[in-house]
Amino acid sequence: MKVAAIALLLDGKLAGDGEKEIAGIAGVESAGPADLTFADGERALNRASASAAGCILIPASAALPGKTAIAVKHPKLALIRAAEALLAKPRVEAGRHTSALIAETAQLASDVAVGPNAVIEERVKVGERTVMGAGVVVGRDVEIGADCILHPRVTIYPRVRIGARVIVHSGTVIGADGFGYVFADGRHHKFPQLGRVIIEDDVEIGANATIDRGSLGDTIIGAGTKIDNLVQIAHNVHIGRHAVIAAQTGISGSTVIGDYVVLGGQVGVGDRVRIETQSVVGAQAGIPSGKIIRRGSAVWGTPARPMAEFKKTHAAIKSLPRLAQKLKELQAKVG
Amino acid sequence: MKVAAIALLLDGKLAGDGEKEIAGIAGVESAGPADLTFADGERALNRASASAAGCILIPASAALPGKTAIAVKHPKLALIRAAEALLAKPRVEAGRHTSALIAETAQLASDVAVGPNAVIEERVKVGERTVMGAGVVVGRDVEIGADCILHPRVTIYPRVRIGARVIVHSGTVIGADGFGYVFADGRHHKFPQLGRVIIEDDVEIGANATIDRGSLGDTIIGAGTKIDNLVQIAHNVHIGRHAVIAAQTGISGSTVIGDYVVLGGQVGVGDRVRIETQSVVGAQAGIPSGKIIRRGSAVWGTPARPMAEFKKTHAAIKSLPRLAQKLKELQAKVG
Amino acid sequence: MKVAAIALLLDGKLAGDGEKEIAGIAGVESAGPADLTFADGERALNRASASAAGCILIPASAALPGKTAIAVKHPKLALIRAAEALLAKPRVEAGRHTSALIAETAQLASDVAVGPNAVIEERVKVGERTVMGAGVVVGRDVEIGADCILHPRVTIYPRVRIGARVIVHSGTVIGADGFGYVFADGRHHKFPQLGRVIIEDDVEIGANATIDRGSLGDTIIGAGTKIDNLVQIAHNVHIGRHAVIAAQTGISGSTVIGDYVVLGGQVGVGDRVRIETQSVVGAQAGIPSGKIIRRGSAVWGTPARPMAEFKKTHAAIKSLPRLAQKLKELQAKVG
Repeated sequence: MKVAAIALLLDGKLAGDGEKEIAGIAGVESAGPADLTFADGERALNRASASAAGCILIPASAALPGKTAIAVKHPKLALIRAAEALLAKPRVEAGRHTSALIAETAQLASDVAVGPNAVIEERVKVGERTVMGAGVVVGRDVEIGADCILHPRVTIYPRVRIGARVIVHSGTVIGADGFGYVFADGRHHKFPQLGRVIIEDDVEIGANATIDRGSLGDTIIGAGTKIDNLVQIAHNVHIGRHAVIAAQTGISGSTVIGDYVVLGGQVGVGDRVRIETQSVVGAQAGIPSGKIIRRGSAVWGTPARPMAEFKKTHAAIKSLPRLAQKLKELQAKVG
Repeated sequence: MKVAAIALLLDGKLAGDGEKEIAGIAGVESAGPADLTFADGERALNRASASAAGCILIPASAALPGKTAIAVKHPKLALIRAAEALLAKPRVEAGRHTSALIAETAQLASDVAVGPNAVIEERVKVGERTVMGAGVVVGRDVEIGADCILHPRVTIYPRVRIGARVIVHSGTVIGADGFGYVFADGRHHKFPQLGRVIIEDDVEIGANATIDRGSLGDTIIGAGTKIDNLVQIAHNVHIGRHAVIAAQTGISGSTVIGDYVVLGGQVGVGDRVRIETQSVVGAQAGIPSGKIIRRGSAVWGTPARPMAEFKKTHAAIKSLPRLAQKLKELQAKVG
Repeated sequence: MKVAAIALLLDGKLAGDGEKEIAGIAGVESAGPADLTFADGERALNRASASAAGCILIPASAALPGKTAIAVKHPKLALIRAAEALLAKPRVEAGRHTSALIAETAQLASDVAVGPNAVIEERVKVGERTVMGAGVVVGRDVEIGADCILHPRVTIYPRVRIGARVIVHSGTVIGADGFGYVFADGRHHKFPQLGRVIIEDDVEIGANATIDRGSLGDTIIGAGTKIDNLVQIAHNVHIGRHAVIAAQTGISGSTVIGDYVVLGGQVGVGDRVRIETQSVVGAQAGIPSGKIIRRGSAVWGTPARPMAEFKKTHAAIKSLPRLAQKLKELQAKVG
């Protein structure tokens, strides 16, 4: 693809040689003369000026004299768009591998791809162009929308619903029983886990994550939400739209998380918590059961408190030994 | 099932229409006229008074005028019992799927169910009515008791022993090598991991958890203990009976955990720790190596300390900036 | 194997009966008359003096009168060497199970073992004597060296490279997409994840871990590094040689970790962090994004600070309620 064509595609302003051929995408340091890269911010632009990249996407306000560059509003986003045009998608042949075990009552759109040793149980419905990798197990009565990718060895328990354009990475388990027991007579009695998991459109879920089914109601993941590896989402959790949940975070039962909320890595959220829209929770923070985090808050620490307070307190803690010393001196003076 | 029959089954006191037909179980808000639900505590009872549920299980001391209700000693426990009577268990056909690979030397009771693509290695023994889902891998010389459920894609390494009525959710790995090395000559030498994992009766283990085999001795999970998703249990850990271990908690090597202990989510327990019977560890707490938590303690924080102390200290930390200000003023006064 | 032969093999000094036959390895408490065990340190030596073990490996400086013992420089390391000589390796038959699905373009050395239902995709290369367990999925263009063990149900995404003598435990996913999005127009746009994962020689990775591929560059795990269960390693992370990463630790994108670094369990490392050679990070510590931990440091806490400072601060925090009381008294005095 010629640089000029890329500039046109991205609605960007070209500087340099529009006739160059670009064949791939690379980072600013490893990029070669046939690669497109991007530079966002001052440091990246400095490194870009020494890059061997064939073409560099830069912010509208920047310039890279002597380089072939395309100035765009949002270089990183532009790279995503260019990549879609430049890179061939890994070809997945539609069709069912002969080793796949598909129940007769399953309804698969004709151009669905089912990998080797996949198991599709009774009454499963799968939409157009969805790809299910090797060893995927889809339980009875599951519904999966169009254009989804279930990577190898994903497990979907019965009755889960998955929207369109959902990506699930290997090893993830959706719909296992929630962790609910009633303690009586010296032992734990298993509470029924009858609800479903509902995953809306455009969700991506990382590898080896776990999303439990609801006990009596449903567990819901809103459209556009992105969930990283090894995340745990308990029964009856409701997550809004376009939230971001980083790796190894755990969310306890019946918690409600609003749209556009960002949870850092290894965050722990207690049960029946409410985290309102657009709030941000710092990595490793712990939110006690029943707590409400108000719309647009930023919190950190265990138990979590407002970010500004956390930082102030943390600074005070650091000076604590000095404080104790001062107090001692003062005591000596006062007598 | 008629309401009157449910009342009889639960040994409860019926108020309202005993002739109603109940077909299912639901939460108090979503329940319809053919559903049974329960209400425990004042708030739940308030919501229940507006519920469309066909019948509501309530505490012996409560009343819901105008509703069909059954008063019982323990409504939530009663719901579990009613559910067992009301709900058909998902039917699993006994028998070996033709794609299952079962070693000739394996001994499976005749009514065991083996799912598609399951792999059962040499000399495995499996008890009556146990169900092994699609893609389960059971290593050589494993013994599994009666009435167990191994959900799809569980992996059991060789020589593990599992009791009766054990449930293991998808993706969980039991018996992988412990993390043991000896550092010498500038590199880590792998220490032998020769022990077993022994899981006693009535244990449930969530999805994508990991329980390592003992290095020289065994790793033991006591009867009735419940373990949530993504929990890590290291080599030679001994867990007592009826303990509860919430999601993403990790327990390091050779630690001993007593009966009825409760560990919150994301707790980290060091190696050679002893947590005595009936202790409770708050979510995200960290217990340093070698520590002893005495019988019936409640601890929180990293490093963990008694809950009361943790809360007091936490309150003091919050007022720390104010304390520093006061000290400054006092200093100015004293001169 | 005779005790005298073991002493010879280990270059140790024998005391007691060299003619005894040793058949196995066991812990000091469970060892019987045909078992070899070891005792390191005073407490272990005390327990060893009551052990029924056939032979005990002890430090050069120690003695166990009345017992058959071999004094060596490093008893635990010596046990590893003895175990290699004493214990038969679990026999894995080379060859491809008839149910394994191996692409015609895959190049497997002739003595490779491929387990039941394994899936080996196009152009995969596998070195001599490597063992791939049941249900392993190896994506197209992956290269795996000699003498590796991939335990059952490991998933390797396309284009990953794995060196020689690498061990990967069940359920681990190598090469899933990194967690990278660009937020624009009210939603998250997926950033290309085009890099590889490169795992060097002699690495061991526990069960259900996740190691993401690089976005534009590569994710690299250095030779000899050991990674425990449920660890998360994000895109573009570079880990040095002979590092040790305990269970449930998470490392965010583009972080660089030096040789011989030790990360405790449940540690959280932010993105673009640099942890220099030989540093130690205490369990559950949290290292904020962009932070540099200097060579040979020991840090703990969230946010992590030098171990000595952490401990001092922690002690000060514990005495905080007392400090507040003192200040109050002083205030009263000063008036």
